[in-house]
Amino acid sequence: MRIDINSDMGESFGAYTIGHDAGLMKSITSANIAAGFHAGDPSVLRATIRLAKAHGVAVGAHPGYPDLVGFGRRAMAVSPKEAEDFVLYQIAAVAGVAQAEGVRLQHVKAHGELFNVAAKHAELAMAIARAVAAFDPSLIFFGTPRSELLNAGKAMGLRTASEVFADRAYEPDGSLMSRRKPGAVIHDVETVAARAVRMVKDRSVVASDGSVVPLDADTICVHGDTPGSDELAARIRAGLEQAGILVKAIGAS
Amino acid sequence: MRIDINSDMGESFGAYTIGHDAGLMKSITSANIAAGFHAGDPSVLRATIRLAKAHGVAVGAHPGYPDLVGFGRRAMAVSPKEAEDFVLYQIAAVAGVAQAEGVRLQHVKAHGELFNVAAKHAELAMAIARAVAAFDPSLIFFGTPRSELLNAGKAMGLRTASEVFADRAYEPDGSLMSRRKPGAVIHDVETVAARAVRMVKDRSVVASDGSVVPLDADTICVHGDTPGSDELAARIRAGLEQAGILVKAIGAS
Amino acid sequence: MRIDINSDMGESFGAYTIGHDAGLMKSITSANIAAGFHAGDPSVLRATIRLAKAHGVAVGAHPGYPDLVGFGRRAMAVSPKEAEDFVLYQIAAVAGVAQAEGVRLQHVKAHGELFNVAAKHAELAMAIARAVAAFDPSLIFFGTPRSELLNAGKAMGLRTASEVFADRAYEPDGSLMSRRKPGAVIHDVETVAARAVRMVKDRSVVASDGSVVPLDADTICVHGDTPGSDELAARIRAGLEQAGILVKAIGAS
Amino acid sequence: MRIDINSDMGESFGAYTIGHDAGLMKSITSANIAAGFHAGDPSVLRATIRLAKAHGVAVGAHPGYPDLVGFGRRAMAVSPKEAEDFVLYQIAAVAGVAQAEGVRLQHVKAHGELFNVAAKHAELAMAIARAVAAFDPSLIFFGTPRSELLNAGKAMGLRTASEVFADRAYEPDGSLMSRRKPGAVIHDVETVAARAVRMVKDRSVVASDGSVVPLDADTICVHGDTPGSDELAARIRAGLEQAGILVKAIGAS
Repeated sequence: MRIDINSDMGESFGAYTIGHDAGLMKSITSANIAAGFHAGDPSVLRATIRLAKAHGVAVGAHPGYPDLVGFGRRAMAVSPKEAEDFVLYQIAAVAGVAQAEGVRLQHVKAHGELFNVAAKHAELAMAIARAVAAFDPSLIFFGTPRSELLNAGKAMGLRTASEVFADRAYEPDGSLMSRRKPGAVIHDVETVAARAVRMVKDRSVVASDGSVVPLDADTICVHGDTPGSDELAARIRAGLEQAGILVKAIGAS
Repeated sequence: MRIDINSDMGESFGAYTIGHDAGLMKSITSANIAAGFHAGDPSVLRATIRLAKAHGVAVGAHPGYPDLVGFGRRAMAVSPKEAEDFVLYQIAAVAGVAQAEGVRLQHVKAHGELFNVAAKHAELAMAIARAVAAFDPSLIFFGTPRSELLNAGKAMGLRTASEVFADRAYEPDGSLMSRRKPGAVIHDVETVAARAVRMVKDRSVVASDGSVVPLDADTICVHGDTPGSDELAARIRAGLEQAGILVKAIGAS
Repeated sequence: MRIDINSDMGESFGAYTIGHDAGLMKSITSANIAAGFHAGDPSVLRATIRLAKAHGVAVGAHPGYPDLVGFGRRAMAVSPKEAEDFVLYQIAAVAGVAQAEGVRLQHVKAHGELFNVAAKHAELAMAIARAVAAFDPSLIFFGTPRSELLNAGKAMGLRTASEVFADRAYEPDGSLMSRRKPGAVIHDVETVAARAVRMVKDRSVVASDGSVVPLDADTICVHGDTPGSDELAARIRAGLEQAGILVKAIGAS
Repeated sequence: MRIDINSDMGESFGAYTIGHDAGLMKSITSANIAAGFHAGDPSVLRATIRLAKAHGVAVGAHPGYPDLVGFGRRAMAVSPKEAEDFVLYQIAAVAGVAQAEGVRLQHVKAHGELFNVAAKHAELAMAIARAVAAFDPSLIFFGTPRSELLNAGKAMGLRTASEVFADRAYEPDGSLMSRRKPGAVIHDVETVAARAVRMVKDRSVVASDGSVVPLDADTICVHGDTPGSDELAARIRAGLEQAGILVKAIGAS
């Protein structure tokens, strides 16, 4: 049994600091690094890659909508062609800066609403997957289980990774509960850690109605922008390791 | 005898069109492609690389100051570290999009005021050269003769290319005459074509005072944003070829 | 009988030029001036206001989505609060620069997809109308007939202007035919001029199925970004005046 | 005896938070509000004006270089015309949003390097002062003593305010000691409070060499982006009031 832990990183910008990158790097195995469109800047990007390298954390690109003031959290009616091009650009930027630091890009995970919209819209998901495959078909492509992103990745011949959220409630159909509903985010650290273990060991999650839903878990996402996220990540990792699960970057041999 | 002809390309942005890329691609051998900071956007970048590939034109990165409204033509007091990071980012973006199109990056030429300021300031020039070397030490680094850019490129072990301007007047010390002086830009097509031939054949230029100044010429720059620039480029190329000079991308074997 | 002719203006940006502002100013009576979010910059904005003033053309704000690369033509899932705030900001910028030039703001017309989305969504339309009313309740608020924009303007107590397009086909229900349908744009200048006259005189338009649809026309929009738009505007104006219709800025007494 | 206390406000951006606006508003009398070019966004701008209004704090515009990633702290070689236009735009935006909130703009203080460069360069200072005067000649124009900004403000017929820094060391010539020198920033709260009182009461400061330098003090700047800045502001205000000095917005009657 083996699992990857990923987190969004490198979302600071100029004089603005956000997230707990230094703390989280101690516990995660894969960093999704912002590329300057929804967050991040060239100096933050490079420093984050160095930080990841120093911690032995694998590096991925985290492309988002071109909307800095909205932090990539607002859907934009971009054409599939536009999406493919700006995702490719962002992957290229992260991969190239990583190359300069002697690091090979491991994966791609779309950010925020680009991730959410593409999860449900095949055309957008295919555009993103095409960008990944065009750049480097050996990259690992992240998406939630049953999402159009995973379908698109497979259709493009990419290796995919099924991503789960240990601190989020799931609906009986296996989808994430909307953040607008009460109970959508689980705050109790021990509960979150236990859910993470179950997700990996049993490949299932207890949904909001108590039913057990099967769930593929290749990588667990830890949110980096909430207070205490570094402690939560440390606790999840410790719980997984105590349960005998190998915590390792998804692309590591 | 052999020469490269380069031009700035891919400087359109969204709904805004600038330059005569399609026409110029017929005559040039190396395209300096904007990376989205002073000009260009992800879709323009990709389309320009495809256009270059279709014409057998070599592709280079054309990094500039992060100043879209100023088109990279206003000096910015960035630190060497900031410059190194944003130049690296821009090289990475162009190189990665080129990679997706099956094209290998040939060279790097800084844009506008970044090019001009770095020509005179060793620290900035070294920052840019460090970014190039960190990304790929086999890239060819463009700069005007005797500039700090060429010095920096050599100091970093890069292959450098000495760039000349056939349609610009030169001072007796071999520097470009400021555009603010009368006669700085030569408009007569035949004169420009003849100067280009002389620059390559005699490795010299007739300066503004009539003196002959030695000048290394590895690549000739043709401006793409002036009306008739495509015809000028065609005439320069024809003149060079008629003089028995091989016009070929600088990195081609 | 009286009519206003409006056009989008001031959409150039830095080194990028778009539109035929100087030519159109001779024929229009109201200029919708971009505010720097979807197009325009502070210097273009000011120059455009000066140009309008010199031609006796009334000045309005033309707020758009914060999406320069998309030219405001891509819907963005902004919250009503965000829309209200960025519309207010853009109105303020145009009005304040106009004030510095001794010009009083006459109207507000939303741009591109912000205009189109708000035409159909009451919540977004109300957000825009609230911004207008908060800034200056005497401003005239533009919208297409029967749109949520006009409803929202009236609900906020604003004076509204019903806008028609002489060069666009209309559906039998009075809505604009989608640009994706053949025949959506009418290119024959004489036909367009005749339609304009009919819209004002008969307050109706012949729809795509030949039926006559009633249509309030307070202002006619002329597109400025198409070749020949200045000649088209001149012809429309001449046709209106020849038909005895007074062509005057909507807010003029 | 009377003094104003000002601080830079509204520099958060989208998801990024910076500064201690809510805490500082309790102690200051004038807020310099970012306009979206070096920092701030339309929603932050409006919220900050509301916050100022709720605290009875006067509102000013804080225009900066168009350089969000550099936070306006990097000099840019803009032309005086460009500076005049983007300063006017930023003043207009802040004034107009304030107008929508029922607040009248009191003053203008340039931000960061725009302030620093203009302090020494008459041409840039005049460009900024022209923008202020063009928008509203009754605005109060901030600048450090003996700076070109104050000269320019006076030349344009503006009311000026001489600004001092209680927590910064001064050179014997009355200029601010560079932040790069040791001792440039005074951290001891009581010392800072005592210096503030002396600046107002004696219109002088003890310079770094112990000499007493005369100094006009109309407004004291408190930095908002340092930890504990809200406590420092409270202590300075308390010290001033205990010394019998009236702490009141500079434009208040």
